[in-house]
Amino acid sequence: MFLFYSNQIQEKIARFDPSESAHAIRSLRMKSGDDIHFTDGEGSQYKGKIEIADAKEMTASIETQINAEISPSPIHLAFVPTKSSDRFEFMVEKCVEIGVRTITPLLSKNVERKNVNIDRLHKIALSAMKQSQQLYLPKVNQLTKFTEFITQLEHRDSQKYIAYCGESNLPVPNKLEIDKKKPILILIGPEGDFSIDEYKKALSYDFQGISLGDSRLRTETAGIIAVHWFKTILL
Amino acid sequence: MFLFYSNQIQEKIARFDPSESAHAIRSLRMKSGDDIHFTDGEGSQYKGKIEIADAKEMTASIETQINAEISPSPIHLAFVPTKSSDRFEFMVEKCVEIGVRTITPLLSKNVERKNVNIDRLHKIALSAMKQSQQLYLPKVNQLTKFTEFITQLEHRDSQKYIAYCGESNLPVPNKLEIDKKKPILILIGPEGDFSIDEYKKALSYDFQGISLGDSRLRTETAGIIAVHWFKTILL
Repeated sequence: MFLFYSNQIQEKIARFDPSESAHAIRSLRMKSGDDIHFTDGEGSQYKGKIEIADAKEMTASIETQINAEISPSPIHLAFVPTKSSDRFEFMVEKCVEIGVRTITPLLSKNVERKNVNIDRLHKIALSAMKQSQQLYLPKVNQLTKFTEFITQLEHRDSQKYIAYCGESNLPVPNKLEIDKKKPILILIGPEGDFSIDEYKKALSYDFQGISLGDSRLRTETAGIIAVHWFKTILL
Repeated sequence: MFLFYSNQIQEKIARFDPSESAHAIRSLRMKSGDDIHFTDGEGSQYKGKIEIADAKEMTASIETQINAEISPSPIHLAFVPTKSSDRFEFMVEKCVEIGVRTITPLLSKNVERKNVNIDRLHKIALSAMKQSQQLYLPKVNQLTKFTEFITQLEHRDSQKYIAYCGESNLPVPNKLEIDKKKPILILIGPEGDFSIDEYKKALSYDFQGISLGDSRLRTETAGIIAVHWFKTILL
């Protein structure tokens, strides 16, 4: 079953953008009257029938709506991009499959790359959401400076963690006391890790230092593992 | 700190193959008398000094030896390769960083790719072991037919699991009763999953069906998550 995405759902009609429309009509050769499944990216899945089989602007009627269960503790991953875009793009894809809800690339002291193609990350997130049949389209934020990010007021109700290798005996996620009703925010550093000043600054803004185990992990592996680890705790 | 690898350690001298030697002498410009850290890939780490700084066959004296803690339950991942070699090669790298100990590519009914460059997987595993500073070099087996693999006698003392999407209500790894003293073997299917016949055959050879959660995961994501999930349980 293919899951399509529409952000234009009004009453009983959904409209699809050119890329979704072309995928259905040109690649899959779907026709007017065919059953179609789609999500609004905000937690609902719909079943309907194609009305106008236009490869540029397909429309579908809506027959049934299923709402996703309210997910516990949405997870927000903020990471410092790797030099190779392949690596962090792969990470974003994997994190979306696992169920991350927000992604923010960060500029930290040891950053190896100062530009990120946010449009491309949006596309990767959309495609991974559809492929893994999830109903929430993750939000991808613009590249943000570390200090600006950790001081943002919107995180004040989140449970905030910073993965850091420079301090021993930090707890792994299994050992944390997690409130399953509150959002989770995780910071993952660059290959050279966060600086000690950045780490201390994060602590002063109520982030808690965590370890992701004994291996020395690449940034993209740390991101995937962190999201998965918290996800399993929330199960 | 760089960690090198030598499989020729005798008494108080270690010899290094051309690729390790060139890395130390040519890329890092290390010299005779420099401190060097290396592993035998079998659980020991050594500290020594470079004796012969030859970029083709470096040797080092051994000063101290640290043995890895005996790791609980080595994890063996057997997976059906994806069409794109990038995807499963990335998975192998991530699984080694997380700490997998054996990897076997499998030929199953829905396999999308019937050749795998095993030498390349060896190199990826070696490089990921060194990068993540682990002391066990994972074993990479040849491509093996599904039925031949699941009936191999060497797995008879392992705790054997098969990830399968075709049956509902299978337990996730958190819900299993795991003996931390016995090896763990996990089978991950291709994009079209294992066939029902393959799944039943595996059950008849004492594999237990497991779920990796609600999302529909790509093969490489399932492999990474499965290894990580068991690893966190063994912590």
